[in-house]
Amino acid sequence: MNADHVFSPDPATRDVARRLYASVAALPLICPHGHVDPRVFADPDYRFGTPADLFIIPDHYVVRMLYSQGVPMESLLPSSTQTEADHRQIWQTFADHFHLFRGTPTGMWIRDELRNIFGIEEKLTSASAQRIYDAIAEKLNQPAFQPRALYERFNVEVLCTTDAATDDLAHHRRIRESSWGGRILPTFRPDGVVNIDAPNWRANVDRLSEVSGISVSDYPSLIRALEQRRAFFKQMGATATDHAALTPFTVALSDREADAIFQRALRGQAGADDARMFTGHMLMQMARMSVEDGLVMQLHVGALRNHNRAIFERFGPDKGADIPIATEYTRNLQPLLNAFGNDPRFTLILFTLDETTYARELAPLAGHYPAVKLGPPWWFHDSLNGMRRFFDQVMETAGVYNTVGFNDDTRAFCSIPARHDLWRRSACDWLAGLVVRQVVDEDDAREMAEALSYSLARQAYRL
Amino acid sequence: MNADHVFSPDPATRDVARRLYASVAALPLICPHGHVDPRVFADPDYRFGTPADLFIIPDHYVVRMLYSQGVPMESLLPSSTQTEADHRQIWQTFADHFHLFRGTPTGMWIRDELRNIFGIEEKLTSASAQRIYDAIAEKLNQPAFQPRALYERFNVEVLCTTDAATDDLAHHRRIRESSWGGRILPTFRPDGVVNIDAPNWRANVDRLSEVSGISVSDYPSLIRALEQRRAFFKQMGATATDHAALTPFTVALSDREADAIFQRALRGQAGADDARMFTGHMLMQMARMSVEDGLVMQLHVGALRNHNRAIFERFGPDKGADIPIATEYTRNLQPLLNAFGNDPRFTLILFTLDETTYARELAPLAGHYPAVKLGPPWWFHDSLNGMRRFFDQVMETAGVYNTVGFNDDTRAFCSIPARHDLWRRSACDWLAGLVVRQVVDEDDAREMAEALSYSLARQAYRL
Amino acid sequence: MNADHVFSPDPATRDVARRLYASVAALPLICPHGHVDPRVFADPDYRFGTPADLFIIPDHYVVRMLYSQGVPMESLLPSSTQTEADHRQIWQTFADHFHLFRGTPTGMWIRDELRNIFGIEEKLTSASAQRIYDAIAEKLNQPAFQPRALYERFNVEVLCTTDAATDDLAHHRRIRESSWGGRILPTFRPDGVVNIDAPNWRANVDRLSEVSGISVSDYPSLIRALEQRRAFFKQMGATATDHAALTPFTVALSDREADAIFQRALRGQAGADDARMFTGHMLMQMARMSVEDGLVMQLHVGALRNHNRAIFERFGPDKGADIPIATEYTRNLQPLLNAFGNDPRFTLILFTLDETTYARELAPLAGHYPAVKLGPPWWFHDSLNGMRRFFDQVMETAGVYNTVGFNDDTRAFCSIPARHDLWRRSACDWLAGLVVRQVVDEDDAREMAEALSYSLARQAYRL
Repeated sequence: MNADHVFSPDPATRDVARRLYASVAALPLICPHGHVDPRVFADPDYRFGTPADLFIIPDHYVVRMLYSQGVPMESLLPSSTQTEADHRQIWQTFADHFHLFRGTPTGMWIRDELRNIFGIEEKLTSASAQRIYDAIAEKLNQPAFQPRALYERFNVEVLCTTDAATDDLAHHRRIRESSWGGRILPTFRPDGVVNIDAPNWRANVDRLSEVSGISVSDYPSLIRALEQRRAFFKQMGATATDHAALTPFTVALSDREADAIFQRALRGQAGADDARMFTGHMLMQMARMSVEDGLVMQLHVGALRNHNRAIFERFGPDKGADIPIATEYTRNLQPLLNAFGNDPRFTLILFTLDETTYARELAPLAGHYPAVKLGPPWWFHDSLNGMRRFFDQVMETAGVYNTVGFNDDTRAFCSIPARHDLWRRSACDWLAGLVVRQVVDEDDAREMAEALSYSLARQAYRL
Repeated sequence: MNADHVFSPDPATRDVARRLYASVAALPLICPHGHVDPRVFADPDYRFGTPADLFIIPDHYVVRMLYSQGVPMESLLPSSTQTEADHRQIWQTFADHFHLFRGTPTGMWIRDELRNIFGIEEKLTSASAQRIYDAIAEKLNQPAFQPRALYERFNVEVLCTTDAATDDLAHHRRIRESSWGGRILPTFRPDGVVNIDAPNWRANVDRLSEVSGISVSDYPSLIRALEQRRAFFKQMGATATDHAALTPFTVALSDREADAIFQRALRGQAGADDARMFTGHMLMQMARMSVEDGLVMQLHVGALRNHNRAIFERFGPDKGADIPIATEYTRNLQPLLNAFGNDPRFTLILFTLDETTYARELAPLAGHYPAVKLGPPWWFHDSLNGMRRFFDQVMETAGVYNTVGFNDDTRAFCSIPARHDLWRRSACDWLAGLVVRQVVDEDDAREMAEALSYSLARQAYRL
Repeated sequence: MNADHVFSPDPATRDVARRLYASVAALPLICPHGHVDPRVFADPDYRFGTPADLFIIPDHYVVRMLYSQGVPMESLLPSSTQTEADHRQIWQTFADHFHLFRGTPTGMWIRDELRNIFGIEEKLTSASAQRIYDAIAEKLNQPAFQPRALYERFNVEVLCTTDAATDDLAHHRRIRESSWGGRILPTFRPDGVVNIDAPNWRANVDRLSEVSGISVSDYPSLIRALEQRRAFFKQMGATATDHAALTPFTVALSDREADAIFQRALRGQAGADDARMFTGHMLMQMARMSVEDGLVMQLHVGALRNHNRAIFERFGPDKGADIPIATEYTRNLQPLLNAFGNDPRFTLILFTLDETTYARELAPLAGHYPAVKLGPPWWFHDSLNGMRRFFDQVMETAGVYNTVGFNDDTRAFCSIPARHDLWRRSACDWLAGLVVRQVVDEDDAREMAEALSYSLARQAYRL
């Protein structure tokens, strides 16, 4: 891997891509949406564990691919009796199957991490597996490989976590109260209490009562408790909220209708249509609150979670069995956008797993409504080709300035530099293609590269 | 911008693209579908107004992008008290935000127009805005910049407008009766009277009675009046009709069913399903009439109009708030195609805003039914990448000869040369890619370039 | 056409592509799914007939394109009174319209066949038509152009046919009993008896009783008869089954529910919903049997057959009037995959005509479930661009090793080498692009090229 990684082989294009990339490569990383556990920064002595803990066990991209090729889930996941030898065996299994990741983003990220974070130039194979395990393990014992040190080495300017509405943000409080200069911000995610079909919903509502000090017994008290939590998150540094739903359906219910559903849910009598209506209504309430408190609203829709029931029952969620579905935005978002989409105080950032909506629905919506911005390619599409399709299908209609740069959206802290680097290289390569075809001049391309790499994310998330 | 604009940077491909483009660059422009106001040609002394009148106020692509980034609609649209200073301010606002159009087709067209029509080489920025305004305004005062003169300078061979079925075609009559040699033809668009949910439908029906001399009081008289208008349009030079609908749903109703819906509509009692059924039925009637009178039928479907209610209520339609929806052709068109798709007298040209239908539905339909042809990439997809996707996804299955070349489909007369040039360059670039990969030889590519640039449109529209 | 056919014009990419292609070009052809008539191999003296018999009459790709441009179906299809002069005329008509195939896969395959099988370098035109007809006809009279000789010349290692569940496999038996070394295997296709809305379903069921020796009078006897036939096919060398349906809907009915539908079908009283439910249920039964007998299950869905009723009524099926529809896999396959998708004995190979499902549904499913593999681009998408889209949209998420290499899926035996060669070239070109962008190294790319060209098909189909 050399300096021209992912750039076009065409010499004219590559020269422009090199120059553009040189202008953005050293910019700090803005990480406005992700799933790194704030605990790793709260504890100044936190260590990442074994190479298997770092690269395999928590990474559903890795686990799903090995499982898809016949590796039993049991041989990849920790049990209570696991020893270091088990972790070595997990690593060996991974190395034995590393060819499965050829041409995948996971393969690219891991190769980049091994080289650029851990200094490992050797190719990961069955033969080299244990040598490489040892080399990583040795590094992970050094202070320079603790999370706070890596945060600084990675040149992160700000990193936002994702936190349940019921979270007391104790880790975030500990970070704020420490003398460490890193900027770790919470993000308000209320799915567990506003989606009445969420697992453990009833317990989540009780927990909401507890942390908010507001007894949530009906729809009005739910709204008050959520407003209280948003204010708390904001006070703790949050600038955004995040919302997941199966579809982007939105609807305005009367307070009475909303309360009737909520009461049915409390009694355990709500059906699937109740859940759909309530989520659709609560998305509009969340938008209303965002207009009022200025928290940027993110919407991630379109994954059918836990498609494989047997895997879910035995191993739980996030094992690579979430499968996307076709998604409709134009009609589903119309109620919400008609209510709030013209308000200059409101920002709604949309994500999709259905790329057919890029050019057909999302870019036209973002290219019209002042509130709407488009998030970067998400999940399966956070890849070299996924980015190319995003640039090719979104930008002509939405324009660069209705997008919000990059999100790494990852639990895997050590993959963050690799992910941002792939985005920056990919953006520069795309822009170089525009320059050589004379769609934009190089001065404009340089400003677009900076915006995509840094400023757009910073501005859109009000960081 | 030099001679290789939009061509591949690969030298071998570019050389072929240059040769192909040289063979088509000077061909006359065939403009078989668009929205230029015929009035601009009817009045030999017509002038275009200010630079803001020409480039900004009527262009929903421009207005929507500025609005999406927080520029108030009020600051872009004319009011009754507007002065020339207001137009200068609109232009300044546009220039201040011109970076929003980087990488968009609007940005490319406007740059091309400024340079190639108005001779302006300077980049449009906040600083240059007033200088450029003055330069354009100065040109717009010259006879060489009046519509008829530009028509000739642009080397237009024929330009079709789009006209309501109730239009008396007075402007067209005036053009025909003048000594001017330009060929401006009307196109018959009956949406306002056949879609019973169209705005002002009742008034449109009354107007239809008036212009046709046939009192439209029931379904049979509606059919007679439409046949009368089609004959009139044909006599005035029309060779085609155009039809817009939310979906391509078609259905054959009995005369009795059709009349029952029509009667409900006249009484103001028709519902949404009535409207859907009636439009679906009338599309089949329009196809039937096309078989009989030889007018080519165009179908533009898939835009949910006026998505943003507040904007529609305050500023009216065509403000960039029309958002596409997923569209289904295979089943929806089956009734119409089973009735008329095998008839050699019939041509049906299909347009889509849903690119997923290119390879899946439209190319297979066009590659089988003698009547079906595919229109060029439409609206949001009339762009460099939109054209590439069209070529890549349509041509292998439909073949070049089941497509109809280019339509500029624009209200903005001065953008016509830029749009055709982008198509021709884009087509030559695509063909050059086929030549260097040895998919076709250069002789074949030259004939394909000519067809795409000129002959296919001329033949398909019977011009 | 030279050695670099379809490779990127970029010199760096082309050099890698050449090297990769050189490493796979001579590998034997694995043909695990197709529609060649086994009769052509059963009879050692079989001859292909006239050039029109070979290239035009049975090829729905050719027929549909000519028909779409106004060539009457009657002038292309055989009648009982046809003479050799008629075949010459059909060939002339084809040559007169050969420009229609510019840029299409059919055009590429035919050019390749004429050159590489028949040694014809001259371009097919109106003028050269009869000369080329004579040259082909002369070759077809030689023993070297009989099917068995061509099988060996093409370097086919194994070729699977597709055979109705009711087929007695007499041709396959004759091949097995002959001294010829070619490996021609049957594939079990039960659509005609399990889809109760199939044409001639009642007669097919009777035929099933006859060939199985099991009187099929209810659901349990249907299941027994199918199990008997699968065992017979397996004994005759089959390693796979193939299933076509309009959608991939699956559902588990009780035996009682299944029998109730079957009884209604026997009485001619089953409705459309019965047919949908029964097919959905039988797909699950077929999966259950595959788990038990080890036959690989293929699923081809998404074509609305015989869209053009007039053509179907006059000329029958397979005339190029099958049109794809949008297809949903995530929810539709959930019942089947929850029941059998985790079973290591089961392989389910999915095909689609809806490319929007590649990245959204199919790659995530294949990248998780051990049973799921993805078939190559099918039908309209078996083309240069179709392959590129498949590589670009599938591989990053599914990985190369959850795909199954190439299927030619053709009735046209002589097109097999051209089709495999296009796939191999296309794969090498794609891989070369990964190498020059440093996504994979050239050693990995070489192994991926071999897998895509040969091993994956051999392994996935258990050949």
